Amino acid sequence: MNAFRLTTKIRVAPQLLQSKALLSRAYTIAPMLKSDKKIRRSLMYVPCSEERKIQKSLKSQADCIMYDLEDGVSLNRKGQARQMVTSALELQRDKASELGVRINAIGSGLELDDLQVILQSKKLETILVPKVQTPTDIAFVSNMIDTLAPEETKHKIKIIAAIESALGIMNIREIATCNPRIDSLLFAAEDYCNDTEMTRTPSKIELYYARATVSNAAHAYGLEAIDMVCMDFKSKETLKDECLNGLRLGFSGKQAIHPDQIDMINASFCPSPDVIDRAVKIVKGFEEHSSKGIGAFDLDGKAIDMPVVKWAEKIIIRAKLSGVDVEKLLA
Amino acid sequence: MNAFRLTTKIRVAPQLLQSKALLSRAYTIAPMLKSDKKIRRSLMYVPCSEERKIQKSLKSQADCIMYDLEDGVSLNRKGQARQMVTSALELQRDKASELGVRINAIGSGLELDDLQVILQSKKLETILVPKVQTPTDIAFVSNMIDTLAPEETKHKIKIIAAIESALGIMNIREIATCNPRIDSLLFAAEDYCNDTEMTRTPSKIELYYARATVSNAAHAYGLEAIDMVCMDFKSKETLKDECLNGLRLGFSGKQAIHPDQIDMINASFCPSPDVIDRAVKIVKGFEEHSSKGIGAFDLDGKAIDMPVVKWAEKIIIRAKLSGVDVEKLLA
Amino acid sequence: MNAFRLTTKIRVAPQLLQSKALLSRAYTIAPMLKSDKKIRRSLMYVPCSEERKIQKSLKSQADCIMYDLEDGVSLNRKGQARQMVTSALELQRDKASELGVRINAIGSGLELDDLQVILQSKKLETILVPKVQTPTDIAFVSNMIDTLAPEETKHKIKIIAAIESALGIMNIREIATCNPRIDSLLFAAEDYCNDTEMTRTPSKIELYYARATVSNAAHAYGLEAIDMVCMDFKSKETLKDECLNGLRLGFSGKQAIHPDQIDMINASFCPSPDVIDRAVKIVKGFEEHSSKGIGAFDLDGKAIDMPVVKWAEKIIIRAKLSGVDVEKLLA
Repeated sequence: MNAFRLTTKIRVAPQLLQSKALLSRAYTIAPMLKSDKKIRRSLMYVPCSEERKIQKSLKSQADCIMYDLEDGVSLNRKGQARQMVTSALELQRDKASELGVRINAIGSGLELDDLQVILQSKKLETILVPKVQTPTDIAFVSNMIDTLAPEETKHKIKIIAAIESALGIMNIREIATCNPRIDSLLFAAEDYCNDTEMTRTPSKIELYYARATVSNAAHAYGLEAIDMVCMDFKSKETLKDECLNGLRLGFSGKQAIHPDQIDMINASFCPSPDVIDRAVKIVKGFEEHSSKGIGAFDLDGKAIDMPVVKWAEKIIIRAKLSGVDVEKLLA
Repeated sequence: MNAFRLTTKIRVAPQLLQSKALLSRAYTIAPMLKSDKKIRRSLMYVPCSEERKIQKSLKSQADCIMYDLEDGVSLNRKGQARQMVTSALELQRDKASELGVRINAIGSGLELDDLQVILQSKKLETILVPKVQTPTDIAFVSNMIDTLAPEETKHKIKIIAAIESALGIMNIREIATCNPRIDSLLFAAEDYCNDTEMTRTPSKIELYYARATVSNAAHAYGLEAIDMVCMDFKSKETLKDECLNGLRLGFSGKQAIHPDQIDMINASFCPSPDVIDRAVKIVKGFEEHSSKGIGAFDLDGKAIDMPVVKWAEKIIIRAKLSGVDVEKLLA
Repeated sequence: MNAFRLTTKIRVAPQLLQSKALLSRAYTIAPMLKSDKKIRRSLMYVPCSEERKIQKSLKSQADCIMYDLEDGVSLNRKGQARQMVTSALELQRDKASELGVRINAIGSGLELDDLQVILQSKKLETILVPKVQTPTDIAFVSNMIDTLAPEETKHKIKIIAAIESALGIMNIREIATCNPRIDSLLFAAEDYCNDTEMTRTPSKIELYYARATVSNAAHAYGLEAIDMVCMDFKSKETLKDECLNGLRLGFSGKQAIHPDQIDMINASFCPSPDVIDRAVKIVKGFEEHSSKGIGAFDLDGKAIDMPVVKWAEKIIIRAKLSGVDVEKLLA
């Protein structure tokens, strides 16, 4: 074993053999917990032409209420839906959900009117752009935000890019990286199947390629990944299976078309107690060691390095935004 | 509910609240049914060095007869196969199948001779370019068509690009979009496995990535997607399973190496009666509503919008080309 | 049948109907067998901060010993690990394994010190660059090799690019093609899951997209593909299943974290006797026919063309490097 110390081959300056402090100051997760970001486990579509559904949305526990001007509204009611949407955004509601609007697709001939109406609202937080195929679609919406949105909210309006075509998948890199307002990539299975003539089966394998592409691209560029709607809204089993499947594939949330889907989705996309527990151990361990100038350590026999710490941070922030008292766990 | 009408926040001009007519004139599928396009559910390889197989091909019910100068012909018979191919194209046959030739790969040293022979025929409809790796391969074939093909047919000759290597998959976007003559992307499993050292198993999972990539790229750029050969030509079960699997993954047809495979492939890639029925309902409903200036409507509780209508169009056109009397169903 | 010979439509010059010799000289696999390339079925990580494990590595049957300065070494022992690594490379060992070092990730602040130490060794054959995200990461390492490596070994040092993030997957084409020193793409599941929040399940389906992307890209650009670590090092069954799964997906080798994994990995990634047998038949048949000026032939009723011959070459070379006496089989 002395061989390691006795070697004379090394001519490198001794200081190079010392480990540099990786972190210039002690690490703590505390500042990250102050984020006023809203979690978006469940994204619930509410057709804006139906007052009954708008009323119902006021009691919804969905993380994101997405008032819909597009597929949920028939063409002869688009005008009426536009009249109702800005009012809907103003109403009092039980939960401080994120408020968004799904406009009609760029190129439909309806999108300009949609934007001119919704961009008057100071309550609008997010625009879901459906059927995105190229960065141009996003550029148009972003330019309209710059031009029309209220000064107070303009810099905060987020865009969700919905990938629901074969071309959207081909261009996903360009779409994901084209505009800083993009916050999420969303995969929509129904239109993707219409476009590609694929069939959605219980195995979900036909859509795996597109879903994995969306999830991977979202994570590559720091965006959220929102999974497809579960069409079978009567079966809790099917929904549960789809949620678990999406979670394992890296999705951070799921679209919903029925109020009964929200609880299951919210519960599924909140980290489980044992996952939170492990994340807390990792972050606490890292805080403790970094305060002593040590940047990596062992936990239950496994080396904890930066990718693991970053994973743990994501879990803890998600848990906190889901309502878990993580400060208590971290104390 | 009055809240929606009483709001005073909306300052937008009233005309923006009215829905624009999405369609400038009433929609009808009739013109699309006049297409003289041939369907290509089954693509049957016929080695051009074997007169017996050429004779047999005259009775084939395959949608596309692909006379083969490449892998089905040994090197010492390439000259003989070239002598036979142009004659084969001229022969009388039972069905007005699409007639194509698979030439030898670009770079094999054989492709120029192949093209000089086959481009003299006025019967040649389609060239299958095997082992396409870059757009250059396609450019060469297209330039040869421009130079050598008869004036009467030159503008109609189509190219099928066969993707059968890892590099073909990497370059699929560039290949799919490089030339207007490209009509289809075709996936060939045997050479893909040789190139990537992957193994074809009954689960087909090893090839899923490549097949999904080909299907998605084809749909992104308006091309057909043709699935791999079923090598086990003795088992109807295996063939049926592969057909269904390909159909669900968005493929529009399948290659065949044995005459016994044709009927099953043709039947599998023709839409089923209930799918046709639904497509007819969608198109009829859309025609009816658009004549009243309404562009979206409900069918069996589901909103029908443009992606669904486009899907229905594809189904109806495919059914018609498969021999179904869709005019009667649409009446 | 006379129709084929009697046609008068063919005006092409007669010489075009003759097959050109595809091969200017008779083919033989012999020169390829002289390669001094080392096989890399198993790549074993050895934490460079642990003398006991370094000692153990001297008896390892792993094809590639990868001395680790990164995740296997805690931050407060990085300096010590650097002190030990160059000595470790010098030690006598049972098998002439390939010797590599996994440095810390580019951007960690540790990589420059790592490189300054290890590039003094003439025994260093391979550098594993972890967490590669862009070609810049590789360019840095390659430039350091140019600057610091001994003249005698500089041109031989290889780089393995580890893909373990969503961005690495997005940029895989650029990474794979950016530098001639890159010899392999390696997929690392643990950090990929941390980055993408995906979950590794026994079905392995969540990682299929990333693994297939890595395998396909490697084959597209003539690189090796090295599969993920099997974390469950106590179960032979799990390891065997993972090896088989990786092999079928085109991987040429697998990472190991425990000495007990080596034998199974080496055995799994060596071609089986019947596969070798078939490859030998193909190569012998091709040598025989090409000596007569024939470039394609039938074997067991299947046409043997270049992609098949290239596959057979890969099998034979791999068998030889795995210790099989292929010269005897080829005689």
